[in-house]
Amino acid sequence: MALADIRGGTRNDTGIAAALSQLAARFGQRFQMGEAIRAQHAHTTTYIPAQLPDGVVFVENTEDVKAVVTICAALKVPVIPFGTGSSLEGQVNAPEGGISIDFSNMKRVLSVNAEDLDCTVEPGITREELNTYLRDTGLFFPIDPGANASIGGMASTRASGTNAVRYGTMKDNVLAVTAVTATGEEIRTARRARKSSAGYDLTRLFVGAEGTLGVLTSVTLRLQGIPAVIAGGICGFPTLKDACNAVIMTIQLGIPVARIELLNTLQIKACNAYSGLSLPEQPTLFVEFHGNEESVGLQSEEFGAIVAECGGGAFQWSADADERAKLWKARHNVYWASKALRPGYEAIATDVCVPISRLADCVAETERDIEDHGLLAPIVGHAGDGNFHVCVVFDDKDPVHIERVEAFVDRLAARALSMDGTCTGEHGIGQGKQRFLPQELGGAVHLMQQIKHALDPDNIMNPGKIFSSPPAI
Amino acid sequence: MALADIRGGTRNDTGIAAALSQLAARFGQRFQMGEAIRAQHAHTTTYIPAQLPDGVVFVENTEDVKAVVTICAALKVPVIPFGTGSSLEGQVNAPEGGISIDFSNMKRVLSVNAEDLDCTVEPGITREELNTYLRDTGLFFPIDPGANASIGGMASTRASGTNAVRYGTMKDNVLAVTAVTATGEEIRTARRARKSSAGYDLTRLFVGAEGTLGVLTSVTLRLQGIPAVIAGGICGFPTLKDACNAVIMTIQLGIPVARIELLNTLQIKACNAYSGLSLPEQPTLFVEFHGNEESVGLQSEEFGAIVAECGGGAFQWSADADERAKLWKARHNVYWASKALRPGYEAIATDVCVPISRLADCVAETERDIEDHGLLAPIVGHAGDGNFHVCVVFDDKDPVHIERVEAFVDRLAARALSMDGTCTGEHGIGQGKQRFLPQELGGAVHLMQQIKHALDPDNIMNPGKIFSSPPAI
Repeated sequence: MALADIRGGTRNDTGIAAALSQLAARFGQRFQMGEAIRAQHAHTTTYIPAQLPDGVVFVENTEDVKAVVTICAALKVPVIPFGTGSSLEGQVNAPEGGISIDFSNMKRVLSVNAEDLDCTVEPGITREELNTYLRDTGLFFPIDPGANASIGGMASTRASGTNAVRYGTMKDNVLAVTAVTATGEEIRTARRARKSSAGYDLTRLFVGAEGTLGVLTSVTLRLQGIPAVIAGGICGFPTLKDACNAVIMTIQLGIPVARIELLNTLQIKACNAYSGLSLPEQPTLFVEFHGNEESVGLQSEEFGAIVAECGGGAFQWSADADERAKLWKARHNVYWASKALRPGYEAIATDVCVPISRLADCVAETERDIEDHGLLAPIVGHAGDGNFHVCVVFDDKDPVHIERVEAFVDRLAARALSMDGTCTGEHGIGQGKQRFLPQELGGAVHLMQQIKHALDPDNIMNPGKIFSSPPAI
Repeated sequence: MALADIRGGTRNDTGIAAALSQLAARFGQRFQMGEAIRAQHAHTTTYIPAQLPDGVVFVENTEDVKAVVTICAALKVPVIPFGTGSSLEGQVNAPEGGISIDFSNMKRVLSVNAEDLDCTVEPGITREELNTYLRDTGLFFPIDPGANASIGGMASTRASGTNAVRYGTMKDNVLAVTAVTATGEEIRTARRARKSSAGYDLTRLFVGAEGTLGVLTSVTLRLQGIPAVIAGGICGFPTLKDACNAVIMTIQLGIPVARIELLNTLQIKACNAYSGLSLPEQPTLFVEFHGNEESVGLQSEEFGAIVAECGGGAFQWSADADERAKLWKARHNVYWASKALRPGYEAIATDVCVPISRLADCVAETERDIEDHGLLAPIVGHAGDGNFHVCVVFDDKDPVHIERVEAFVDRLAARALSMDGTCTGEHGIGQGKQRFLPQELGGAVHLMQQIKHALDPDNIMNPGKIFSSPPAI
């Protein structure tokens, strides 16, 4: 089972002791070994047990990162990059101990090229901080995974979120990264041109690598013009299938919807209770359009026609920012709303993604599964991408509960795979989903391991993530 | 210099002889060693000398590909995948000899999932064949590099073309590939979900790898709905700078232009002469919009306002399919139009890509360079991406001419790099641009070589491409 696998790291105690003393000498107060700080850096929002690093370095620039990696590489000690700790599959845990590299003091905006719609930032900046910084330029960075995650973390987990349906995922919005590799050297994966055919796409290799190939030191991002008009609304449907059909037609017709989120009936109930709404308790789509007055009007008209054709109710439309903000705040708070269904219990968010034609089947079967097994688990989905989350509310002190949650996650992943989908649309593999990766990609996992081994032969870059065993070639 | 580098391959004559006899036994008439056929499979549309493979296998399915690779791997003999031979940087040459794998008989459409807007095809199908096949589904595959290239070749060179500004490049439109790697096994890089965070992005690693990591056996592509309305037009500008400013504003305002192509004055002259047009001889934008009646109307109105603001002339608008086809045919024929400027001469197309804010500078400096060195070389660009082509017309029998062309390509690449651009936006590195890759990406090239070495230790997968020396780790 998963938990047993995850607990199995071996420690290089001698190397770690030497690294601790060298890092203390090099970084002084910027190196911390206190248990509270170490625990904070192993925080995981899952049922995966916390695994503390042995020390935390608060880096401020690339030279700091190089110094940490060089010291650790020489001693074969793990390094684990840390942004805000909002990853969901144990990505910041330290199963073999080692050094957490905290980026919260390395968050400058290095450049903004407004004409080129790009910027370069240090990894520690969060998406909200970046958008606050950009506000006066008329540009914004669209990727919104919900949490106020760091850009480095978002790149490393290939994050996406509510508006990926229009703007793509981190894979589509990172133009280049710089990274310190296992040799302690910094490389740059690409230049600033919007496209290139110059050699292997190392940018996309680092995006989603979860820190296992190197430590990011800067990220160059594509930006978007802030839309003149943002409007949206919600719409209920008699059945999940009807709601999914509306989504499929919207995508097929190429309506450039900016967000199209599906909440199932239980999720609506949870939102009503938590966010003080009074939405009809039925499968519901939250939709948002970006553009100017005319184009947004056109999009919403086309969408309205689809809703009608699919048997949806009246489309409650709103271009009013406050009203819209209230609805989307409720959407963003689904995790807390779900948790509040059963005070004192924990909640874990797991995600899968399937071809959009299978979304209705996958969600409906999952609802039946939840009911059959007596689980409490609302569903919310980035429906335009075929991606949905199940937030399982459970007693994390009860091993029987944990086992039931794990068995459910197993069935959910198997269901997505049986529909030609993926075991994770946007959370990454981390520790929590390692057992599904070979099921999903078979022999390709061996290629990944060969790449990992070639670039990090001593397995010091965030070891114990993505792969369930060290890459032995 | 480039040519000297390219001629330096070493041959494994013993292995090749054994492979030839085993392949003849296995494939019979589907294995050819005649010089005419071998020469056809080394055809390059550059000044790079042809380097013939020792034999050509006409594969029909994955088992054939596995058989070829398994035989060649055991004997350490190179394999070179061949689609239509339209690559521009010597990608299909065989500098160390070996076996060309011809995919012209491996071009089935394996599946079309209309609801999911995707399809899976064998690599040999060309983009025109695919779009003909898809016509009745209401869907199309948008990437259009000009040539009727094979999908496998387009994936392998990370191709793009005129409408990448709206639909992205092959990197954005390949959902997954299957490939036979150097061990003779087939791997699949991803499933059919629109997005995934499951491990390293091997799909993007194979896209653009130019056959150096494995031989593609299928490609899963994203498709688009055929737009209800396609409209477009052309518009002249007093200066290049004005035309580029119009492009920048169009992109910044987020107008979803489907094509926005820049032709310089000499290119317009060449098109007028070759395609029987009478366009004013000035920098000109060719523009196309996709959508429905309303959205296309809106886009063209917005674009018209930008043109006026940038000092452009009257926007000659056309929603008439025949008229539009004539204009775009002229655009697609720029290579032939350029060549016709000097009958008897050859023409080579080279490309670079810069951040869009530098496009005007880069094109203007290149025009001056062309004039200063007495070259004959029209310019056409995928301006929305900052990507442009120079088609140098020269006497390929004259070493002095060849040297001048090479020196020009050197200066062009250096200019793009000095502007934070890339030495190739869409043609790939192949043999022709190897000398620029380290200049562009420095130490990252070593990472690429480590990956190459890890996945293909005997360097049999299209050797002599991308890297100027074998990856020795």
